[in-house]
Amino acid sequence: MIFKKKLERIIDKNNSLLCVGLDPEMEKIPQHLKKLKYPFFEFNKEIVDATYDLVCAYKPNIAFYESLGLKGLEQLKMTAHYLRKKYPEIPIVVDAKRGDIGNTMNHYAKSIFEYWKFDAVTVHPFLGLDSLKPFFQYKDKLIIMLLKFSNPDSKMFMDLKTGSDKFYLTVAKTIAKWPYGNIGIMAGATYPQELRQLRNIFPDNIFLSPGLGAQGGEIKQAVGAGVDAHGKGIMFNSSRAVIYASKGKDFSKIAREKAKEFRNEINKYR
Amino acid sequence: MIFKKKLERIIDKNNSLLCVGLDPEMEKIPQHLKKLKYPFFEFNKEIVDATYDLVCAYKPNIAFYESLGLKGLEQLKMTAHYLRKKYPEIPIVVDAKRGDIGNTMNHYAKSIFEYWKFDAVTVHPFLGLDSLKPFFQYKDKLIIMLLKFSNPDSKMFMDLKTGSDKFYLTVAKTIAKWPYGNIGIMAGATYPQELRQLRNIFPDNIFLSPGLGAQGGEIKQAVGAGVDAHGKGIMFNSSRAVIYASKGKDFSKIAREKAKEFRNEINKYR
Repeated sequence: MIFKKKLERIIDKNNSLLCVGLDPEMEKIPQHLKKLKYPFFEFNKEIVDATYDLVCAYKPNIAFYESLGLKGLEQLKMTAHYLRKKYPEIPIVVDAKRGDIGNTMNHYAKSIFEYWKFDAVTVHPFLGLDSLKPFFQYKDKLIIMLLKFSNPDSKMFMDLKTGSDKFYLTVAKTIAKWPYGNIGIMAGATYPQELRQLRNIFPDNIFLSPGLGAQGGEIKQAVGAGVDAHGKGIMFNSSRAVIYASKGKDFSKIAREKAKEFRNEINKYR
Repeated sequence: MIFKKKLERIIDKNNSLLCVGLDPEMEKIPQHLKKLKYPFFEFNKEIVDATYDLVCAYKPNIAFYESLGLKGLEQLKMTAHYLRKKYPEIPIVVDAKRGDIGNTMNHYAKSIFEYWKFDAVTVHPFLGLDSLKPFFQYKDKLIIMLLKFSNPDSKMFMDLKTGSDKFYLTVAKTIAKWPYGNIGIMAGATYPQELRQLRNIFPDNIFLSPGLGAQGGEIKQAVGAGVDAHGKGIMFNSSRAVIYASKGKDFSKIAREKAKEFRNEINKYR
């Protein structure tokens, strides 16, 4: 099934635009999980089982697993396997932010879609079209272009003026002309004005908008700026503010409450 | 030991600016290796044993290992372990091209320097300074900024005019002002004019210049443009043109001949 359809179904089923980031860190997960053999997997499993009916997607950022090396990636594999088995209707977006020349991107694409079997991925578009074609050929998958980041210093280069537009907008307007049906857009929820500009350039594309919660995005403005004409077409990601809402044994219960709160708050402004 | 010193020593010892890319692909390695349990490791081991006295560094691109998933990364680990044990004086540069916001970059840096223990890494600088600080704090390591890529379509965005300079040059000039001693620069050997411009902006930094050979870089021009005032300070990388020079059982012997040829050709113009 193409990504867009899969996402639409779960958005409707769960009445949710909330994507939960599965970014486990040894320093932040509850104490009682740390002594287990697979603490990241157990943490993710509990979070997922407590929130599966409140989300439209899960988004593991691969860096958090890579930091433990093979042992971390093994737990990402267990998480992905668990999700696909138990909740096959929920798309998994891997936040990998890959960006290299074409021959190398072939290998990253093969890794992400054939080995890991993820549904969507984030990539750097700045190396140009030929670097992205290896990803675009996976037509069922969503290839999400990094355009507007949520960190303060990203302005340093992304906001440089290129003609009358900022750099990232010029990149966006070029991408908007590319003839591929599986282009997604990433734009931080912390910059609603820029999110709106990008939505105007890409009225029908799927957006991924991180930064809700811990990074301080204001929900009302972000939702107004980011949804498509049908009040859908976007995944608002929250990681830390949901998964680390409590560090006690009740962490998944509190994560559920937090996820419900976010989902409902987002729905108010759709 | 800081990277710069480690590199200088091996450049002098092996009289070489050649870096060999360890980028194994199942479709390209010799037939007789494919049936082994660890074909990538065996391939790398033979290449390394045949070229260790002709190079100044090895550069695995992590994508080629990720495409086989955990099994590929396990072989990268075996390769890195073998290199560190047998040839500890040769730096390992991992071509990972990571680029994310600060909190996430902490995890990538931890992965690359604490888990994998690589000596240097390539990163996307386009998210700005705060995204790179987690890497800069590893003062013994070299953090290589991607600035001028070797693929044709990279011009699409990198060459956009920002004021009087192209985008990547404006980025370069900003980076040149950052107060960190471990900044490296990546600029493809296929664009000697741009390589020279970047060398002028960064007279004392270590460069990594890929594209020698298979991507068509002309050695004389690239060397003239890329070396520092002492005829050093740069690693010219060749992957495919060395490691796949032969697909027969003699592949490592032919790789050695090709590496020697590249090394000597580079030395002619230093």
